[in-house]
Amino acid sequence: MNHQIFDFVGGETGLWRVLKIETVVGQPIQQVPFLNIVQSTGIPHSSNGWVLKGFRSNTRYTERLELDQLIAIQAELGRTEAICAALIPIRKTEAWWALAQDERRKIFEDQSKHTATGLKYLPAIARRLYHCRDIGEPFDFLTWFEYAPEHAEAFEELVHHLRGTAEWQYVDWEIDIRLIQTDK
Amino acid sequence: MNHQIFDFVGGETGLWRVLKIETVVGQPIQQVPFLNIVQSTGIPHSSNGWVLKGFRSNTRYTERLELDQLIAIQAELGRTEAICAALIPIRKTEAWWALAQDERRKIFEDQSKHTATGLKYLPAIARRLYHCRDIGEPFDFLTWFEYAPEHAEAFEELVHHLRGTAEWQYVDWEIDIRLIQTDK
Repeated sequence: MNHQIFDFVGGETGLWRVLKIETVVGQPIQQVPFLNIVQSTGIPHSSNGWVLKGFRSNTRYTERLELDQLIAIQAELGRTEAICAALIPIRKTEAWWALAQDERRKIFEDQSKHTATGLKYLPAIARRLYHCRDIGEPFDFLTWFEYAPEHAEAFEELVHHLRGTAEWQYVDWEIDIRLIQTDK
Repeated sequence: MNHQIFDFVGGETGLWRVLKIETVVGQPIQQVPFLNIVQSTGIPHSSNGWVLKGFRSNTRYTERLELDQLIAIQAELGRTEAICAALIPIRKTEAWWALAQDERRKIFEDQSKHTATGLKYLPAIARRLYHCRDIGEPFDFLTWFEYAPEHAEAFEELVHHLRGTAEWQYVDWEIDIRLIQTDK
């Protein structure tokens, strides 16, 4: 068992009910009615759907000042009122991965204000990033968001804004999955 | 099969004969006579030794100018004359991982000149970095070096120099494994 890899299992059962799965860019993925998030065991799932794997890691672009702001205002996952969720798998182009660290940072923050934008929506919209590229997965990143229904509009603003940035010109595959807790 | 994860298998057989395994800092690991490097299949190895897993990834600190210099001078692995190798697994402290990107970069390059030092020994000493922290491995990084016998002294200089840097104050576990090709 690898405690750092998580499986996002789309299938017939799950703690999260899928409201919609939309293809923003690239190939669609299979429609499924439910999603579960579990620690990866290495044992294949019997689901008739799909499994996306990702691991949490250290931050790659966040500088000290930004990190301090994030820590001061961060929101935990699993808040009772945050019954809405989104899972957004993305893949970035080879051109992105061929860039050097300083070039990626410039696009990510100086031009696209990725962290600054996320901060604006905290603590309403909690967010957790999972990395997948390094373990041979089809997507490069999975981002998981949780928020209360009254912040649904703010969430739309956030994703709309990010999709208009210079950074997003390097995104060549993006799926937008919206979910709601099944016991609510 | 995950084509991006590699297994460094220490055991009774292998393409590389182990000359010595020294503990630089932290706990020793089991002595083994041979090492093999294979793509990870997920199937456990029958070796009576150990398996260290790591994946290659994009660079995390290298800036454009440095990357251009590295690309211009880089040395491939597997050169006929490079029959000497070293495998150096290291773990960094929690204090390192709690640093922000700009703080890690400052220590890594501005203070420790990690990339600049590596460049000085290219193309004589070829080097490949594997990441392990994110997949739940005991070490954070495995670095693999290959060089010809006439550059053995230069290699000692390189590792001695790195161990004296500010970056290395964050290394709390380091094993130094020296090897030679079995068919030479």
